[in-house]
Amino acid sequence: MTRTRLVEIERDILDKNNGIAANNRGLFVADDLLVFNLLSSPGAGKTTLLVRAVSELKCSRWVGVIEGDQQTSNDAKRIQAAGVPAVQINTGKNCHLDAAMIGDAYRRLPLLSGGILFIENVGNLICPAAFDLGETCKIVVFSITEGEDKPLKYPDVFAASSLMVINKIDLASLLEFDVGKAIEYARRVNPKIDVIVVSARTGEGFAALYAWIDRQAGRQRRAFEDKGR
Amino acid sequence: MTRTRLVEIERDILDKNNGIAANNRGLFVADDLLVFNLLSSPGAGKTTLLVRAVSELKCSRWVGVIEGDQQTSNDAKRIQAAGVPAVQINTGKNCHLDAAMIGDAYRRLPLLSGGILFIENVGNLICPAAFDLGETCKIVVFSITEGEDKPLKYPDVFAASSLMVINKIDLASLLEFDVGKAIEYARRVNPKIDVIVVSARTGEGFAALYAWIDRQAGRQRRAFEDKGR
Repeated sequence: MTRTRLVEIERDILDKNNGIAANNRGLFVADDLLVFNLLSSPGAGKTTLLVRAVSELKCSRWVGVIEGDQQTSNDAKRIQAAGVPAVQINTGKNCHLDAAMIGDAYRRLPLLSGGILFIENVGNLICPAAFDLGETCKIVVFSITEGEDKPLKYPDVFAASSLMVINKIDLASLLEFDVGKAIEYARRVNPKIDVIVVSARTGEGFAALYAWIDRQAGRQRRAFEDKGR
Repeated sequence: MTRTRLVEIERDILDKNNGIAANNRGLFVADDLLVFNLLSSPGAGKTTLLVRAVSELKCSRWVGVIEGDQQTSNDAKRIQAAGVPAVQINTGKNCHLDAAMIGDAYRRLPLLSGGILFIENVGNLICPAAFDLGETCKIVVFSITEGEDKPLKYPDVFAASSLMVINKIDLASLLEFDVGKAIEYARRVNPKIDVIVVSARTGEGFAALYAWIDRQAGRQRRAFEDKGR
């Protein structure tokens, strides 16, 4: 197969995905939802972060989660145990979630009007970057055990994300990780990326994360009101 | 695009790759090389492990490295600084190395007859599993910061690997990581997988790794002699 033919096929797949993502986005806006698509390497701590966040956020608004993994429904079970509805998608051989999977899974969740939908993508710092799911924005979760250089080595995910959450900061004293350098590298790839440093294990930094989510809600409300004028 | 058409295209791509991988394997056998294809998540410590291993192995045999990353040539520079020839492949948008990339890169290395070629694949616990590069075998490197459940959630890489190296064991006392459980999960996916526990930072476990490599060399020699009879 020629390289040109392969590029055409990739474009077909992305075009089809983008059409379905636009439909999803229409549904999410109609339901007044904030939708965050979480991307990271396997083991960066997305699920632990979500379990803590949804346990606390569910007291003030509707929260739901769509979990993506190649296999197992362990993650959805962990979220459900925190008292929040969760749907598991198993992607099998596939290395990322796509918009059609999200459209189907969203129909299996209860109505979350005015709330937050978190999507935990398959653990993969490359492929999910290219696929719009209809989300409000992408969030990259990045653990300090991975080394400062990952934004430079895997730039697409960092370029596509609005927020970088640096996780496992409770391990900072034991590892030679330079937070300033990691932020500098991420901003070389994406000068506008927001950064929040947390420990999903201890809860450090979560107040800043919730304040950031509130700002996104405010921004979405203003965009909606501007459109209505 | 229909699902059937997509499966056909994937098969075309894999068939083409397998043909080139067979050529690579022929070259490697002719040069009496052991070739290890290292797979892991980003940040599991493949490069740190390789820097230590090649520094020690180069005293007794020829060693070379092919490094794969989406961007940057940081990793090849780290290997070269250890006094071993290294070629960097930047895959751009691609999420894995393929056999054609390895064929090209191998021609840019000096002759390593009777030695070892390490291939550090792109940090990705999913996609590289499907692509034969012509290697002797695949090795999955898995850091204890990632959680015990990764073999169940990303089974393909563990099923395709002959050896699982559990890295960062120096952090074990600080994390709740159950080595026995991780091994049990990996063997559920691949009952024959060998396991070695190391710390690339302190050097713990590397003697076992070198002994394992020697066993692979012995096995290859015997296979070669059997063929010659």
